[in-house]
Amino acid sequence: VSAPRIFLASDYGLDDEFVGVLHAVIAREAPEAVVVDLAHGIAQFDVAAGAALLARVAPHLGPGVLVAVVDPGVGTPRRAVAIEVGGSGPRHLIGPDNGLLLDAAACLGGMRRAVTLPRRTGVAAARTFDGRDVFAPAAARLARGEAFEALGEEVAVASLVSLPPPVVTTRTLDDGRVAITTAVRWIDRFGNVQLALRGVVLEGATTAGLVVRDEDVLAPVVRAYADLERGTVGLLRDANDAVAIVVGEGSAASRLRVAVGDRVELVGAFGPVH
Amino acid sequence: VSAPRIFLASDYGLDDEFVGVLHAVIAREAPEAVVVDLAHGIAQFDVAAGAALLARVAPHLGPGVLVAVVDPGVGTPRRAVAIEVGGSGPRHLIGPDNGLLLDAAACLGGMRRAVTLPRRTGVAAARTFDGRDVFAPAAARLARGEAFEALGEEVAVASLVSLPPPVVTTRTLDDGRVAITTAVRWIDRFGNVQLALRGVVLEGATTAGLVVRDEDVLAPVVRAYADLERGTVGLLRDANDAVAIVVGEGSAASRLRVAVGDRVELVGAFGPVH
Amino acid sequence: VSAPRIFLASDYGLDDEFVGVLHAVIAREAPEAVVVDLAHGIAQFDVAAGAALLARVAPHLGPGVLVAVVDPGVGTPRRAVAIEVGGSGPRHLIGPDNGLLLDAAACLGGMRRAVTLPRRTGVAAARTFDGRDVFAPAAARLARGEAFEALGEEVAVASLVSLPPPVVTTRTLDDGRVAITTAVRWIDRFGNVQLALRGVVLEGATTAGLVVRDEDVLAPVVRAYADLERGTVGLLRDANDAVAIVVGEGSAASRLRVAVGDRVELVGAFGPVH
Repeated sequence: VSAPRIFLASDYGLDDEFVGVLHAVIAREAPEAVVVDLAHGIAQFDVAAGAALLARVAPHLGPGVLVAVVDPGVGTPRRAVAIEVGGSGPRHLIGPDNGLLLDAAACLGGMRRAVTLPRRTGVAAARTFDGRDVFAPAAARLARGEAFEALGEEVAVASLVSLPPPVVTTRTLDDGRVAITTAVRWIDRFGNVQLALRGVVLEGATTAGLVVRDEDVLAPVVRAYADLERGTVGLLRDANDAVAIVVGEGSAASRLRVAVGDRVELVGAFGPVH
Repeated sequence: VSAPRIFLASDYGLDDEFVGVLHAVIAREAPEAVVVDLAHGIAQFDVAAGAALLARVAPHLGPGVLVAVVDPGVGTPRRAVAIEVGGSGPRHLIGPDNGLLLDAAACLGGMRRAVTLPRRTGVAAARTFDGRDVFAPAAARLARGEAFEALGEEVAVASLVSLPPPVVTTRTLDDGRVAITTAVRWIDRFGNVQLALRGVVLEGATTAGLVVRDEDVLAPVVRAYADLERGTVGLLRDANDAVAIVVGEGSAASRLRVAVGDRVELVGAFGPVH
Repeated sequence: VSAPRIFLASDYGLDDEFVGVLHAVIAREAPEAVVVDLAHGIAQFDVAAGAALLARVAPHLGPGVLVAVVDPGVGTPRRAVAIEVGGSGPRHLIGPDNGLLLDAAACLGGMRRAVTLPRRTGVAAARTFDGRDVFAPAAARLARGEAFEALGEEVAVASLVSLPPPVVTTRTLDDGRVAITTAVRWIDRFGNVQLALRGVVLEGATTAGLVVRDEDVLAPVVRAYADLERGTVGLLRDANDAVAIVVGEGSAASRLRVAVGDRVELVGAFGPVH
């Protein structure tokens, strides 16, 4: 039997010691567990960006516990939760009850049951670092083999906070082409711009009109970044099987001056949008 | 028995391979050890910032060896040291003799004894990367079970370099309120401004006057970031039980344009300052 | 027997989840393997910078598998390769066939044999994240004990793509001094400027003329950063035994406004250049 895994993702960044302290707490409370850092560069307080990242990562995770922290409401009465899911990856997800975990839970077999995690009490109890004080200790307990139901009070999974899904609208133009309006969901280190749109939309398309800000670009659909000349804008079915706007040897985000959340329109001979 | 832990903290950053090389050296020389990265984003050459970080982290560490490197004097005759402490966390601290380790040592049970770590000799011996050449190998030897006293020559713990403590002054105003002058000790990723002042000072206070640069702000004392309206300045007893200046959904450091080391005055009905 | 090691280096950065996903894939496919991150801050798409980093790190690595990804040609017909080497460090190197791995392979005992790694097929197969889909799975297979030759088709090591070596030219001046022209190979976090020049060149020299951009500086040869007054430019035989331009308590890169690849001339009473 291999060591239990605890997967971590957060908006803590790596400059400060926040992530290191979570590792230290887990090392102390569950010495046999192996911690796997998924990402700690989620944009600060951006719960939707965190939820999208977890959904991208989820299909690649094996058994373990997933702890995620993007938590602008830390210290308020928002609940801390652990969720049990029914797939072959991580069995348990732990974090704030603010919608962060729910897309990943859906990818990981769907929610079976949930518990709320108690806060410590006492005058001096910190209220600003639940990663250290609530979430990591709960993960350590699961990694040590404690029962899920021992972590806290059961709550209805239907009561958990969920985020609104991304808005994707389609309309058919007079010439028979389809116009899809969606939003930028992620911009990666290389400036690739992932849209809230599944990659299958591009199936069969060879080009698409792309409307971003006031600019209108005719973009070829390519399979690899290097299929594009330097500086040329293209569309790609990316490694998460989403639609991404990319630029040859460059940053699509810089080229098109877009940010996460910006509205993007695609016009082309598209198949059905899921 | 679980694997021995080696905790690492430094100002090396994560862009270059410095930290990776320390991991590689430890993997080679103590393959059973598990390395826990605490933080590598300490401001370059800022020994006091590193000492403050180690003191914040120390209470959360279990058994192991703590290696820390913020070392502007590397290659000079400044000593490299290993310190044995008497608490239930890490038993040994390793790093340069420049004051970096001493606050953490005090948190970890106090210094029992210390040794100096020999430098390699020979014309080609590098003098610029003691993390790789001196500190990590010494930690690996301890992780392999070698005796502390085998690492080097014993030196008096009283001879170790210490940093001046932060200056905190208080005076009582005519109206009976207390004015405390202190300094910014840490600004985290979120722009929270931690002061060199223990949180107990805020006990019982509901507001305080805050004088930073030329600005004078009346700040409520809150328990959670989200207790503040967006953009409002408040005071908080933070997760290290220190006083922190915070802003609702924003960066206190940006709002008040302060940097580490800046002078801050608090005026209020405060209890005793420790 | 200690756990098998997989060393990772890339230009993925740590803000996104790319590195985390590689860890997750390895945790799933080779749970007993221990992953050691060497560096993920290699400049984007800079294969030569990646190759230089791997060569610097290679001498410090123990047994294991080295996976490196700087891969502007991902998704094109460029080959994915695994290389077996003959030294006492890592036995296998995995990555794109673009020259990234060859300097490290030379440091690690020289190439013995190589195989190409097959791509997945199928319409939906991603073509943009071979770290996840090709390189990490191949490393996991080796870590699980599979035979090297089972990974793919053997190819001649002489057929692997190599990078041009750095150009270093020397000429003897009328006064008997030697002028060496070379290039900036690496700028680290501290602004130290490593040249493509072995440190032995500085043996016996006490000063050298340094010509960078339009500036001409007489630089002392020192052994430690702290041997220089604040702001003074010096030359150092660095921790990789290369020649580095350094500045006392400051950044040589900022002081001299140089970037990786810039031309630098050294003039002095130098020994032979290797």
